[in-house]
Amino acid sequence: MKKKYKNPVPTVDIIIEFEQKGIILIERANPPHGWAIPGGFVDYGESLEEAAIRESLEETSLTIQLIGQFHTYSDPARDPRFHTLSTVFIAKASGVPKAQDDAQNIGVFGESELPEVLAFDHLRILKDYFHVCSKYPTWTPHITS
Amino acid sequence: MKKKYKNPVPTVDIIIEFEQKGIILIERANPPHGWAIPGGFVDYGESLEEAAIRESLEETSLTIQLIGQFHTYSDPARDPRFHTLSTVFIAKASGVPKAQDDAQNIGVFGESELPEVLAFDHLRILKDYFHVCSKYPTWTPHITS
Repeated sequence: MKKKYKNPVPTVDIIIEFEQKGIILIERANPPHGWAIPGGFVDYGESLEEAAIRESLEETSLTIQLIGQFHTYSDPARDPRFHTLSTVFIAKASGVPKAQDDAQNIGVFGESELPEVLAFDHLRILKDYFHVCSKYPTWTPHITS
Repeated sequence: MKKKYKNPVPTVDIIIEFEQKGIILIERANPPHGWAIPGGFVDYGESLEEAAIRESLEETSLTIQLIGQFHTYSDPARDPRFHTLSTVFIAKASGVPKAQDDAQNIGVFGESELPEVLAFDHLRILKDYFHVCSKYPTWTPHITS
């Protein structure tokens, strides 16, 4: 791989709809601390979809079923560490959530129960998500891969 | 920036709807050769939207108006050079397209006029695009950034 230029680093985040009770958030064990949507870095050779399934399992112990991509966020200021992109997925899961790996705590939250502060740009992402859910209740992604 | 791991490299590609005549394709001057949707690498510190506007201008001389994100493609085999992701945008433009930079030729193509072979996974991307256009004629992206 010849790479002369510096590029943003791709990540995935997953909005996991849990048994119609709310969405899963984890409390991060590593900086930046705080509550966040589960997610992490995409490995070389791994598709975004594979990364979303792997990161969900690592952090929540849940095997998710992907519904589809929601949006890719790329504001250079969205991550205090360095410039990352996040492709956000919507997924569903059931079972017993258990905090693991980069997660030190885990919970299920409805729209009115969200923490006031979330890591990264995750509050904005969740506002977009709940806005789309309320405005377009039948919305599903058109592309599945 | 501390980066211990190897990650896929983010790119953008832009489906430019040109004066209701078709979409813009460029013929690449650099490997991999062939016709392709305009696009390129995302710079560190640059949002995907900024990269889409910059790359369109560099390759087609057109100042585009972004409609929104379509989908992010990440198959590790989609690019023969190394593992890249592509966030694909839909945009519109008018004016005089002129091949520049990485483009050695440029044209406007309707769905039935596409080249049989396109670089990267761009034939698949355009099939997805025309499928969504035909199945969901009123579709527009829900998130604008």
